[in-house]
Amino acid sequence: MNYKNIPMVPRVVFGRGSFNQLNEIISPKRLNVNAPFIFLVDDVFRGDSWLTSRIPLAYQDRLIYVSAKEEPKTSQVDELVEDIILKSKERPSGIIGIGGGTILDLAKAVSIMLTNNGSASDYQGWDLVKNPAIYHVGIPTISGTGAEVSRTTVLTGPDKKLGINSDFTPFDQVILDSELTKDVPKDQWFYTGMDCFIHCVESLKGTYLNAFSQSYGEKAYELCNQLFLENIITDEEAQEKLMMASWHGGMSIVYSQVGVAHALSYGLSYLLGTKHGIGNCIVFDQLEEYYPEDVALFKTMKQKHNIKLPQGICANLSDEDFDIMINIALELEPLWENAVGKSWKKTITREKLKELYQKM
Amino acid sequence: MNYKNIPMVPRVVFGRGSFNQLNEIISPKRLNVNAPFIFLVDDVFRGDSWLTSRIPLAYQDRLIYVSAKEEPKTSQVDELVEDIILKSKERPSGIIGIGGGTILDLAKAVSIMLTNNGSASDYQGWDLVKNPAIYHVGIPTISGTGAEVSRTTVLTGPDKKLGINSDFTPFDQVILDSELTKDVPKDQWFYTGMDCFIHCVESLKGTYLNAFSQSYGEKAYELCNQLFLENIITDEEAQEKLMMASWHGGMSIVYSQVGVAHALSYGLSYLLGTKHGIGNCIVFDQLEEYYPEDVALFKTMKQKHNIKLPQGICANLSDEDFDIMINIALELEPLWENAVGKSWKKTITREKLKELYQKM
Repeated sequence: MNYKNIPMVPRVVFGRGSFNQLNEIISPKRLNVNAPFIFLVDDVFRGDSWLTSRIPLAYQDRLIYVSAKEEPKTSQVDELVEDIILKSKERPSGIIGIGGGTILDLAKAVSIMLTNNGSASDYQGWDLVKNPAIYHVGIPTISGTGAEVSRTTVLTGPDKKLGINSDFTPFDQVILDSELTKDVPKDQWFYTGMDCFIHCVESLKGTYLNAFSQSYGEKAYELCNQLFLENIITDEEAQEKLMMASWHGGMSIVYSQVGVAHALSYGLSYLLGTKHGIGNCIVFDQLEEYYPEDVALFKTMKQKHNIKLPQGICANLSDEDFDIMINIALELEPLWENAVGKSWKKTITREKLKELYQKM
Repeated sequence: MNYKNIPMVPRVVFGRGSFNQLNEIISPKRLNVNAPFIFLVDDVFRGDSWLTSRIPLAYQDRLIYVSAKEEPKTSQVDELVEDIILKSKERPSGIIGIGGGTILDLAKAVSIMLTNNGSASDYQGWDLVKNPAIYHVGIPTISGTGAEVSRTTVLTGPDKKLGINSDFTPFDQVILDSELTKDVPKDQWFYTGMDCFIHCVESLKGTYLNAFSQSYGEKAYELCNQLFLENIITDEEAQEKLMMASWHGGMSIVYSQVGVAHALSYGLSYLLGTKHGIGNCIVFDQLEEYYPEDVALFKTMKQKHNIKLPQGICANLSDEDFDIMINIALELEPLWENAVGKSWKKTITREKLKELYQKM
């Protein structure tokens, strides 16, 4: 048995208001005045001077607003990289991602593609990246995806939705400032928080589980239960704890794997563009057969927070559409093996997946 | 408020038998055939071919057995560094520590002192190290100290017991193979496991607590409670879980601080050479006033595992001896501030500490 040698985020600052330390943290990493820092920022912060006035632009640095309305695409990475190369005198000093999972994944992918030839789609898979990425910093502004700590960046490519999983993917620096999450809309807060809850369930109930992943996964799972089922703490505490749940949840899957919900959710996202957080919720809601107790908990959480999931998103799909989603989902073999075991192909048939998708 | 930018171990392998991957992991780090790897190994493994035959010695590599009977000293670090420089054609490719907290702390300190002038005692304190350490790998063979993950290396110097706390201290690579802990004697297992339990208590009950440290500390604390109070799992599972408890416990104090037990234990260790694990237990046993519920739990654990702590180790000490211990303990100001609060000097008097030491 060969165990993975996991690359971890080597530097982390945690604290309310720590975003103010950004300049101090990145300044020593500036290569020279012609090598800019590129700030990729979720465009929900456009015009929000509370945040943007604290982004330390100097010399040729650029702030690029990016929409997180859609899941990140390999073509979007390629365009950003081309634009950055064209407009920078030298290779940038670093990429700083400020946003949710979409922005963080884009920041990771762009930092990789600035030192590796071709299209981002060439690197979707496991350990295909050849050269180290440039310095990259992740600053989450919503909690739950675990993108701040993972060794993947999940992208929709021309023919698949799959991560660039590599030792060069993780951020060199993460800043965990829960204050940045204070204005997240309630539905987003729920969907993204549930991303954490769901991948903890998938890790903890999976066949790949080990003591490393279990200890992280249990802590994140416990925090999610506390945050989404109880009412005992202040908003500030809740934001801090959800940020840590996201961190631990991400650490849990670094050393195990996700499962049924993520596999099916990737299909929805590929075909319909469904965002990852809400997609996971729509799928998980139908997975009593695989995760009975946790789906029951999820339904309680949904009710408590008065969340209404979209219904019937697959109602008008053609057989070809179902086939596309099923193909995407079945390609994710490690997820199925983790969820159902080595002989997963016996029960995870095309018919079974179609039946599940038809409920959504 | 300025938050610490914490350096984390950037690479970790976790798994039963992962020690077999050592050669594969360090080979790419060999600078050339004249730059050896130096393996610092706890001398309890002398003649134990199960472990030593798997240490991948090549070229000019050296295996140096080190006794962990005493706490590590700055003079011991200086001697090791001198010996390594004298006998190596070039600066080593790396230091690999294989052992408990003593060996791991020595490995960290030696790797720092190979690139920094003077004596290790010059660097006891906070952020005094100027140059990055050479590549260093930590492989724990007993669980609980958290030395595998911390940014300190605690050393007894000519006039103080204090860590070299620096961004260059953490290991570049850690291998967590619980199988290496299978032959730990029961009393050692208990004392070192209690080091984890005690520093979690000190972190969780301290005034420096934050959501980051709390989430790690609670998980480690919960694992210790399970491991030392319940009987529900196999030896192998228990070894894996204790290894994770040590990891999370170490992470907890990276972002907070220890407290009363550690402060007083440093005094015992400085004067009497008491080892850290057993010293913490001797002290904690007398701290009902500061940590009432946890001292009660500790006493239950002690009883369950039939552990008899040494009694009366301070019975024959002179007033000068007490003064020496009290001076060492009082110098550790952050520990007291964490434990008792900003106005700790009102209650933590020399008389109070003497009274506590006299009970031990």
